[in-house]
Amino acid sequence: MHDVDSREFASDNYSGVHPDILAAIVAANGGHQVSYGRDVYTEHLQEVFRSHFGADARAYPVLNGTGANVVALQAAADRWASVICADTAHIHVDECGAPERVAGLKLLTVPAVHGKLTIEAIRREARGFDDEHRAQPQVVSLSQATELGTVYTPDEVREIADFAHGLGMRLHVDGARLANAAARLGVSLRALTTDAGVDIVSFGGTKNGMLLGEAVVVLNPALDRGLDYLRKSSMQLASKMRFISAQFVALLEGDLWLRNATHANTMATLLHDRVRGLPGLEVSHPVEANAMFVSLPAEVLAGLHRKFAFYDWDASAGEARWMTSFDTRPEDIDRIAELVAAATR
Amino acid sequence: MHDVDSREFASDNYSGVHPDILAAIVAANGGHQVSYGRDVYTEHLQEVFRSHFGADARAYPVLNGTGANVVALQAAADRWASVICADTAHIHVDECGAPERVAGLKLLTVPAVHGKLTIEAIRREARGFDDEHRAQPQVVSLSQATELGTVYTPDEVREIADFAHGLGMRLHVDGARLANAAARLGVSLRALTTDAGVDIVSFGGTKNGMLLGEAVVVLNPALDRGLDYLRKSSMQLASKMRFISAQFVALLEGDLWLRNATHANTMATLLHDRVRGLPGLEVSHPVEANAMFVSLPAEVLAGLHRKFAFYDWDASAGEARWMTSFDTRPEDIDRIAELVAAATR
Amino acid sequence: MHDVDSREFASDNYSGVHPDILAAIVAANGGHQVSYGRDVYTEHLQEVFRSHFGADARAYPVLNGTGANVVALQAAADRWASVICADTAHIHVDECGAPERVAGLKLLTVPAVHGKLTIEAIRREARGFDDEHRAQPQVVSLSQATELGTVYTPDEVREIADFAHGLGMRLHVDGARLANAAARLGVSLRALTTDAGVDIVSFGGTKNGMLLGEAVVVLNPALDRGLDYLRKSSMQLASKMRFISAQFVALLEGDLWLRNATHANTMATLLHDRVRGLPGLEVSHPVEANAMFVSLPAEVLAGLHRKFAFYDWDASAGEARWMTSFDTRPEDIDRIAELVAAATR
Amino acid sequence: MHDVDSREFASDNYSGVHPDILAAIVAANGGHQVSYGRDVYTEHLQEVFRSHFGADARAYPVLNGTGANVVALQAAADRWASVICADTAHIHVDECGAPERVAGLKLLTVPAVHGKLTIEAIRREARGFDDEHRAQPQVVSLSQATELGTVYTPDEVREIADFAHGLGMRLHVDGARLANAAARLGVSLRALTTDAGVDIVSFGGTKNGMLLGEAVVVLNPALDRGLDYLRKSSMQLASKMRFISAQFVALLEGDLWLRNATHANTMATLLHDRVRGLPGLEVSHPVEANAMFVSLPAEVLAGLHRKFAFYDWDASAGEARWMTSFDTRPEDIDRIAELVAAATR
Repeated sequence: MHDVDSREFASDNYSGVHPDILAAIVAANGGHQVSYGRDVYTEHLQEVFRSHFGADARAYPVLNGTGANVVALQAAADRWASVICADTAHIHVDECGAPERVAGLKLLTVPAVHGKLTIEAIRREARGFDDEHRAQPQVVSLSQATELGTVYTPDEVREIADFAHGLGMRLHVDGARLANAAARLGVSLRALTTDAGVDIVSFGGTKNGMLLGEAVVVLNPALDRGLDYLRKSSMQLASKMRFISAQFVALLEGDLWLRNATHANTMATLLHDRVRGLPGLEVSHPVEANAMFVSLPAEVLAGLHRKFAFYDWDASAGEARWMTSFDTRPEDIDRIAELVAAATR
Repeated sequence: MHDVDSREFASDNYSGVHPDILAAIVAANGGHQVSYGRDVYTEHLQEVFRSHFGADARAYPVLNGTGANVVALQAAADRWASVICADTAHIHVDECGAPERVAGLKLLTVPAVHGKLTIEAIRREARGFDDEHRAQPQVVSLSQATELGTVYTPDEVREIADFAHGLGMRLHVDGARLANAAARLGVSLRALTTDAGVDIVSFGGTKNGMLLGEAVVVLNPALDRGLDYLRKSSMQLASKMRFISAQFVALLEGDLWLRNATHANTMATLLHDRVRGLPGLEVSHPVEANAMFVSLPAEVLAGLHRKFAFYDWDASAGEARWMTSFDTRPEDIDRIAELVAAATR
Repeated sequence: MHDVDSREFASDNYSGVHPDILAAIVAANGGHQVSYGRDVYTEHLQEVFRSHFGADARAYPVLNGTGANVVALQAAADRWASVICADTAHIHVDECGAPERVAGLKLLTVPAVHGKLTIEAIRREARGFDDEHRAQPQVVSLSQATELGTVYTPDEVREIADFAHGLGMRLHVDGARLANAAARLGVSLRALTTDAGVDIVSFGGTKNGMLLGEAVVVLNPALDRGLDYLRKSSMQLASKMRFISAQFVALLEGDLWLRNATHANTMATLLHDRVRGLPGLEVSHPVEANAMFVSLPAEVLAGLHRKFAFYDWDASAGEARWMTSFDTRPEDIDRIAELVAAATR
Repeated sequence: MHDVDSREFASDNYSGVHPDILAAIVAANGGHQVSYGRDVYTEHLQEVFRSHFGADARAYPVLNGTGANVVALQAAADRWASVICADTAHIHVDECGAPERVAGLKLLTVPAVHGKLTIEAIRREARGFDDEHRAQPQVVSLSQATELGTVYTPDEVREIADFAHGLGMRLHVDGARLANAAARLGVSLRALTTDAGVDIVSFGGTKNGMLLGEAVVVLNPALDRGLDYLRKSSMQLASKMRFISAQFVALLEGDLWLRNATHANTMATLLHDRVRGLPGLEVSHPVEANAMFVSLPAEVLAGLHRKFAFYDWDASAGEARWMTSFDTRPEDIDRIAELVAAATR
């Protein structure tokens, strides 16, 4: 019913399911398993997550990224809290107000540098503690990799964690693309999170080759309270959870998570190599993960929109996002690099 | 990793995925598709749902049953509304307060007869219109089939719809097992909903053989406002939606939905036939869908719990629920019927 | 602009302000005082509340009774909690769903005896601990005096507190008319609350002669966390708080609270004495505070509605509520007793 | 118990009640009046508000400013909406997240010029209509006078209203100090609101001489739906409402509202005249209402804090706010002008 050969550059969620993960779904089928997470796959999953995030980690599979973020933020914050995040953060820009509506939390946005929070920026809103008129800043939330395709080093994460902890705040990582960041940096998931002082993570599966599924990973045991209830009352509990957990096992037990992310990153780098320097094309942000942001004249972008799918990031500024995925092929890069070259000629 | 031959009697969500639906997932894989519901499967899905629910129906695939119910109720009710439901309703008993927490709605529960609402019961709470101290009753919500394995006839639904509409209220159907009700009654989905005056439906897929997926089906176009935003801000929007829609197409385009439901119902009836009349066993409710509720002495139930999985429905009353699924086999019925017979001897 | 001589029997909030309290407002006027509760009256108020509720009590003045209840329940309950209350409770019947909407809490109602909870009734809903599908019962809420004009003895409160605590739950008292209960029983406020195991109280001022003002009184210090923020974010913080606190000081520093409540109670008893036994009049509930509930033929009630104001409690059952206030005069009782006698003749 | 002669410069809510308003409270006392707004004062109040805001206006008295704003925003916005406001707006800065928590709304803040929104700034966030990932911008909210003591002219309001309406949005005015703006501009309340295209207003009483009380004033009848329920379920309904309404009648039936506001404004202007040009003192914003913002060396501010009360607006920038009130006396201005002069010498 659809073209299985198509590759677009709009988003990593345009892709389907990695064959190994699909095989894991098929293998998990048949017979009866206890629902709501008391199945053998979900039980095994805890071990798998501990192997990546440390012995204290506890994972709660959920249904989508917004759900992961909102459950995690509730675990980290009181009813009267606010969350400091970049003005480009997914929780602010792309979740239709779910953190506000479902969790009742206020977001305090600060300007970011290529999508990354700085201590200086966080400091602008990390104030007013003990002022009852101010929703209390209790959480800093950063995205790793960021929405602009950049990554924080472990040291940068640690610096933010220390700053947050010094003020009694917690650090949440929106890790929808955490694998891409780890792949880029050549470090473990743990180095980027547990060992860098992160308290809680939204760990993404969908954008890295899963059909559907994310996980809230609690790293600071002080936050591991009521998560089962938060997940259920936030409508993020899957009944046939074995099928989410089995995907995560396939992704994380071996190195598939890393291979997929590395490949997507490599394809973005390749694209970058191919098109930078083209006349009129400006690269907006360092290409550190699986996305490339470019500015191009409006008529060039309009022409390219007729050739392949991508997002206008900031239409008024002529900025576009080209994103790669685990299934982007080198020949797909060739194709669009040529299209871009032709269009800018 | 698990026994693909096991069959339990705990819930229809202990089962896995019907092979035809799994095949549809596999077929939908590969290539790129627009995310968030602008894929070819989701587009086609609208036709499929219209063929079952009428030309005005519009379906919004969501992630789970609680999500379907809470999105549907928000579409049907103002911020200051209450919802009248049976005291056995899933939205009241099994959703960890999500309708209250996420939608801010108050539930007004009334006693039900074998899980079914009556006009007389609804009338107890359908009052206080224009009293600002009372959360305004704007919706009646019924479950079809009910949580107790019974079904409403089209006439019964129509009577409730007329009563609700007469008071300016809307009728929501929690149709997690709507297919089982239609199968039992030998009527179309439309006869039970659109033609009976229902305004909005939560249509279940997971319990009828899907991996994961439900749909909010808006039947009354007056309620079809803002659903995209309600779904997203309620954290029920899947990014790779093609995989939910493809399942629904497989379920609903042919008669798989009906075969699965009929089979599950038949297995429950068979079980009923086999065990009723056993000494000490009392059947609590008419067996009209895919569940059977029985009372048995505590020691008998304790013994059976060691043989196969099922839910204690009301432990203090010695009541248990035995539930069948699309994949329950006649030999599974034989097996547990014999176990029950042996235990009651 | 209005008849200062009128006395109705609809509600104790039909009355105005007790002269001593109005004098306190006037005395608190003039000059500047720190806003939002850092004024001298509010500071002094803490002492006053401690003198009534014990050394650990801490009072947070708020704006109205719904606000007091919803702030108190949030202090006592997690996001995923439910609250067990009588099906006649104000929080369930008369707050337009504010506990659900603002606090996201689920109310679990149980049948009450003359408005009073029993252990047996509470037990019906105090279950399902550790079941993630169930909004977790964390609070029992009782009204003292009840909405039906009855009171719990200190022993009855203690029994409920012990039962609740034994299950890890907290006990909240909606004390909009706590003074009336204490007056009836001849005990201190402390005997009915702190000493009986109550964790948190909504203490009423408005119905006992204040212009406007209630207080959340935290008795269990474990609950005294974030109250300033809960109050503000629940929109219950008064800027010129001195005027609420000064009223409470006038009410509570001497025995005005007790005199007002005793008087109102006495007037209800007097009315009861005068009308019981009249033909066709049935008293629905023991008259223990400042309200009397009667059943009368519909045409009698219709006639009386033309003579004085009162509430139809259950119109279908011909039940009415007659309520007295701190400013009800014996001659007012004479008047309506005669009207009732004439109407039932 | 307190110094009735003190005058501070911290906030207009440090003041007490204007004598005429206190007299109105006293006059409204005595006798019984229907509660919850069906009293003669509240009925009369509608006329009074119509005389100021036009024949279509409908006023809903509420308890405090946050309550007025949150009720008004709910009336103007769907569940999935966002509200565009200045980053200095009270709803963003000073309400402890109540708009997010109680209304579930997302605030989109934009930089303001001296506290005033510009079309250019609004345009930054007035986008993404029809994008389900974006909380839909449905309301622009401006404060009049602003939190920085500046005012919008009727033409400026009209321009914003037209821009908002052109995009299908509504215009809300946080009019906690609307009277000060009208006084400054020499125009009617209507000229600044109804005639300028405003849809709904939070009209302030407390800061202009009332004890407590604000009103939601619906100007666009399309928004006048469910307000009674929104008010009650948002916990903003006063039982003895006559005492709020009687204050508003005293404030608004004659010209007390204008006299109070004019006086407060005049005192701020007088202060401005007295201190501008002092060495090291910089005036941050035009002094157009009843507040003056100044920058001074830290040690000067520290010294002044020991002499009279005022707010540090931006401690890091050495910015302070000095605010006048209806009861500020010329001699109070003399006194602090001399203190400031002495400190800067």
